[in-house]
Amino acid sequence: MLYFRNDYGAGAHPAVLEALCGTNMELTPGYGTDQYTRQAAETIRDLCGVPDAAVHFLMGGTQANKTAIAAFLRPYEAVLAAASGHICVHEAGAVEQDGHAVLRLPAPDGKLTPELLRSAMAGPVNEHTVVPRLAYISNTTELGTVYTRPELLALRRCCDELGLYLYCDGARLGSAMDAGGTGFADYGACCHAFTIGGTKNGLLLGEALVIAEPALRPGFRNCMKQQGAMLAKGRLLGVQFEAVLRDGLYLSLAAHANAQAKRLAAGLERLGVPLLAPAESNQVFPILPEGAAEALGRSVEFEVERGMDGGRTCIRFVTAWHTPPEDVDALLALMEDLLK
Amino acid sequence: MLYFRNDYGAGAHPAVLEALCGTNMELTPGYGTDQYTRQAAETIRDLCGVPDAAVHFLMGGTQANKTAIAAFLRPYEAVLAAASGHICVHEAGAVEQDGHAVLRLPAPDGKLTPELLRSAMAGPVNEHTVVPRLAYISNTTELGTVYTRPELLALRRCCDELGLYLYCDGARLGSAMDAGGTGFADYGACCHAFTIGGTKNGLLLGEALVIAEPALRPGFRNCMKQQGAMLAKGRLLGVQFEAVLRDGLYLSLAAHANAQAKRLAAGLERLGVPLLAPAESNQVFPILPEGAAEALGRSVEFEVERGMDGGRTCIRFVTAWHTPPEDVDALLALMEDLLK
Amino acid sequence: MLYFRNDYGAGAHPAVLEALCGTNMELTPGYGTDQYTRQAAETIRDLCGVPDAAVHFLMGGTQANKTAIAAFLRPYEAVLAAASGHICVHEAGAVEQDGHAVLRLPAPDGKLTPELLRSAMAGPVNEHTVVPRLAYISNTTELGTVYTRPELLALRRCCDELGLYLYCDGARLGSAMDAGGTGFADYGACCHAFTIGGTKNGLLLGEALVIAEPALRPGFRNCMKQQGAMLAKGRLLGVQFEAVLRDGLYLSLAAHANAQAKRLAAGLERLGVPLLAPAESNQVFPILPEGAAEALGRSVEFEVERGMDGGRTCIRFVTAWHTPPEDVDALLALMEDLLK
Amino acid sequence: MLYFRNDYGAGAHPAVLEALCGTNMELTPGYGTDQYTRQAAETIRDLCGVPDAAVHFLMGGTQANKTAIAAFLRPYEAVLAAASGHICVHEAGAVEQDGHAVLRLPAPDGKLTPELLRSAMAGPVNEHTVVPRLAYISNTTELGTVYTRPELLALRRCCDELGLYLYCDGARLGSAMDAGGTGFADYGACCHAFTIGGTKNGLLLGEALVIAEPALRPGFRNCMKQQGAMLAKGRLLGVQFEAVLRDGLYLSLAAHANAQAKRLAAGLERLGVPLLAPAESNQVFPILPEGAAEALGRSVEFEVERGMDGGRTCIRFVTAWHTPPEDVDALLALMEDLLK
Repeated sequence: MLYFRNDYGAGAHPAVLEALCGTNMELTPGYGTDQYTRQAAETIRDLCGVPDAAVHFLMGGTQANKTAIAAFLRPYEAVLAAASGHICVHEAGAVEQDGHAVLRLPAPDGKLTPELLRSAMAGPVNEHTVVPRLAYISNTTELGTVYTRPELLALRRCCDELGLYLYCDGARLGSAMDAGGTGFADYGACCHAFTIGGTKNGLLLGEALVIAEPALRPGFRNCMKQQGAMLAKGRLLGVQFEAVLRDGLYLSLAAHANAQAKRLAAGLERLGVPLLAPAESNQVFPILPEGAAEALGRSVEFEVERGMDGGRTCIRFVTAWHTPPEDVDALLALMEDLLK
Repeated sequence: MLYFRNDYGAGAHPAVLEALCGTNMELTPGYGTDQYTRQAAETIRDLCGVPDAAVHFLMGGTQANKTAIAAFLRPYEAVLAAASGHICVHEAGAVEQDGHAVLRLPAPDGKLTPELLRSAMAGPVNEHTVVPRLAYISNTTELGTVYTRPELLALRRCCDELGLYLYCDGARLGSAMDAGGTGFADYGACCHAFTIGGTKNGLLLGEALVIAEPALRPGFRNCMKQQGAMLAKGRLLGVQFEAVLRDGLYLSLAAHANAQAKRLAAGLERLGVPLLAPAESNQVFPILPEGAAEALGRSVEFEVERGMDGGRTCIRFVTAWHTPPEDVDALLALMEDLLK
Repeated sequence: MLYFRNDYGAGAHPAVLEALCGTNMELTPGYGTDQYTRQAAETIRDLCGVPDAAVHFLMGGTQANKTAIAAFLRPYEAVLAAASGHICVHEAGAVEQDGHAVLRLPAPDGKLTPELLRSAMAGPVNEHTVVPRLAYISNTTELGTVYTRPELLALRRCCDELGLYLYCDGARLGSAMDAGGTGFADYGACCHAFTIGGTKNGLLLGEALVIAEPALRPGFRNCMKQQGAMLAKGRLLGVQFEAVLRDGLYLSLAAHANAQAKRLAAGLERLGVPLLAPAESNQVFPILPEGAAEALGRSVEFEVERGMDGGRTCIRFVTAWHTPPEDVDALLALMEDLLK
Repeated sequence: MLYFRNDYGAGAHPAVLEALCGTNMELTPGYGTDQYTRQAAETIRDLCGVPDAAVHFLMGGTQANKTAIAAFLRPYEAVLAAASGHICVHEAGAVEQDGHAVLRLPAPDGKLTPELLRSAMAGPVNEHTVVPRLAYISNTTELGTVYTRPELLALRRCCDELGLYLYCDGARLGSAMDAGGTGFADYGACCHAFTIGGTKNGLLLGEALVIAEPALRPGFRNCMKQQGAMLAKGRLLGVQFEAVLRDGLYLSLAAHANAQAKRLAAGLERLGVPLLAPAESNQVFPILPEGAAEALGRSVEFEVERGMDGGRTCIRFVTAWHTPPEDVDALLALMEDLLK
């Protein structure tokens, strides 16, 4: 079976595993108070250009989103997000569980815009309504689209104007930076807080949360602990992040995944397969004619995105840091046979 | 000033006040364990045709909605509602505060339909998504529209099919019954639970919650108490509901309000004033040309619903059990002058 | 039956009812934005000597406690309270429902002391523990005991030293002031926030929350609405509080209740009946020999506090603003017969 | 420095690391739907003797406790726990964050008993109180004490009688089984649900939750996801648990830790050092004279449990699967020097 199901199907990149094995028997204090965690946080502060940023390491994306939002907002404050956003459709109501409404905005390409934010804030906001306070974006989005630097800057200006915090879920931040030409410092400058995703880019597990905005920092570790989000052997996260961040591996892994997706998308285009959204990063959403998805499923692992009219099916291919180029070729060959 | 601001501007109907005064110095047990509360619950069970329904008396609409939903759902279960629904826009995120997502569905007339429900349930529902479990409707809706009996029956059938509870927020149930030709028994038969609103139809305060579905009854009083929703002098609610329900006053008060709204809407039609939604119950939403709302505001109390294109403003007139017919005439005369 | 069950068994004092009836047909804006509510808030600010205090009117004691604490604390912050405190044993976990731990401290007389607070804060407080931030006291306590002015001052000094807010649940504040020689201004000076209870001292319903501490004021009405704690016909609370506060009725009603309790306690002492706690206010806790409570229950309404050793039973007598002195005499006569 | 700080200072046992490395590049479906996770669950069901038990793998102890309790209880239901229990003092109010009160019972040795449970349930339980529904025990306890099989059986009988669920936090279950002579099947038989701790006994991270009681199983994975407790690369937990459970490594690692603690305790006894609690498992709590803890801290890593009278300090030594026997000897030699 060819594997294009997701980018968290394998374990860790060998360099990450090596770092874990190399430090395995060291004895350190727990809960992220060790030197490895401190070092990784320092590396991240340097990369982001926010010397006093608070940096925390969490275990997964839902956990990071949920803990951050619960810590940042007062009880009646709400979140604005694209309706396709991860917190809207893939987190089982995690944000609402902590008491906060998530207002789902229609964004066909999965991206928030100043216009969408302004429109959401155009109605009355008062003591009878929820009070939107945080704009949630994911980069890359759940449709594989990507924010550019000017888009991030425009969002931040709009958020400042509307009294909103800008929060970026960077579960696939490496892929977003590679595809969109942004760098860590852009997120440090544009976002009040954001995550750097490890799980989908070479780590066993781990998301780094960067809190650039000073007002959002107090009490965060208390919130982490209360949410069950503080790893006992915290250094495991520091060791892994340091392994991918200190010398650029994080970006080269993402670049590999993106390159394979780009080749795959180009091949699909040659075959005349329509895509649900432009293939900007490491997720590709081809729309297959009736019966094709089922047939393909016998040789390839992928996920079904949704049924469409005319019996067509939109499926999702995901490439990863470990996707062999020859698997892309093999997939394209299969597709060509299938669609003949 | 003419008063068309809302239907909770005055105190209680004289018969309600008389019942309160007449029982004022009686000494009863607290928290709704008295005979007046029991009697009112029995009256409601009779009217609704659900002999074993659980009936609880709460202090306000937001409280009733919030307490019911928190008691009925498991942590990951969610609510489907029209985007204009009271829980979506007038309750400050009360339902989300207790941990439940509210999915806002587009319903231009404020009414849920089987099609809307089916469409909301068409996507994947699994352990990564919220699990919709309760369909929230309000009758009358926030736009003054009304559900008919066939519509309620169709919703219930659809809910049964989709594994949803049907919950009706009846803050203006009297008005809805008068306008839509439904009776208490229709709600007993179609809804798993619903409220009978007192605040907007002659009581000082109070909403009766009827839980027809046996599975939703256990532990409700614990939830009420935990939510701060159990009135110490609980009998005040029983006394008031009994005063309006035992002999039909509840419906005749609503009929009066509806009749005045109908006269008002007819007059506005004669004047050529467009309405945002059909004037089916005791709320009328005229769309005024630029400047008119401001001028009118010097002589009439009303609320602004929203700004519209071309400088126009949609405002809301509400009639109530106590609206003098001559005030409707006076308002129409003012409007005629204004729009000349 | 003689009625000594509680102090919320009757409706409202006639002067309160008269005020409600006299304003019943006036038409005002809702949710406490009317002039009556403003006037009552102003009266309270004057009485308390905190010219810029935020004053809010809520419907009940559990609701007031729960809403205040949820609004005041961050997610991981906790409450310190006497184990007998209302939030510990009579509110069905309302404070915890909003996410905050309540640490129950052993206080045989129901009163917090600086020593208890210091002892509770003596252990480690860090990111692995809850962080106590608010000391909850009730005055009068659930055992009928009362704080004096020096005690309140000492608690406040201790709270300032420990970084705690001092919050006083004043469900029976009138009784506490009469019994303890304190005045409204003492609470304004000593407490960061406190309530003035109406339900148990002459109102149909209503608790006024006074927020003296500026840092605790922002967003409170949003929290109220979200908790279902904002009364639509808000003026009902303002009208009632103004009726009892503007000319001292509040205190004279409480003084009457206390006086009857004092007579009752003196009579019980003459009869040799031991009390669970000193009878300082309007609650008296006699300990009856085996069988006596049951016999008494045939002629008197009261509540059982708890079973005690030797088959004895501690019961609770409560006097109120409406307790006829002759009922106290009659009760004492019954007790004398019973214990002969 | 000698390391006796905790049992989560190192990474994973080599056999665990080898299993992770050996499967690292395999591509599996996410979120615990892979064959490794299924196999580990099956192994656990066999060990516990509950063929239909639900088995879930979570990332940490606080997360497991919090998610389980939130999933198991209705909003007003509460937890009974020893005041020293992990959820009471080391989890930052995680259980309360989800809305549930934790009633802290005085248990000097950290163990709940039927008497404690009965005493906690002796008072009134009604709609005004919280309703205790779950008894939380930890085995080993936070004081290193251990439950025997008869004690577990007696607790279960008592819980059945009182309408409580018995939940065991087994963060150190291996140590508890080795020390107390219990086996997995005892927990399967006595507990409605319990965890098998991996973090403190050889895994990088991971706690297995076993839900023996059928009524507690529905919807659990939805709750996990909502709590951010579902690991994307779920198989990492399955692989690790299988590595330690399939052939008894789990118990032999715990036995090693216990044996070193026993030698340490025996040595301390010889030196006349008093202990806070009997040294039954892998935690030892010596009470040191004034100044000794500080001096010792220059050569040994440990945690301070608490200050005691007379300037004494109670500290905690923890042994682990990797503690070299010679480190115990070296520590005892240091202590002997220190206390001379």
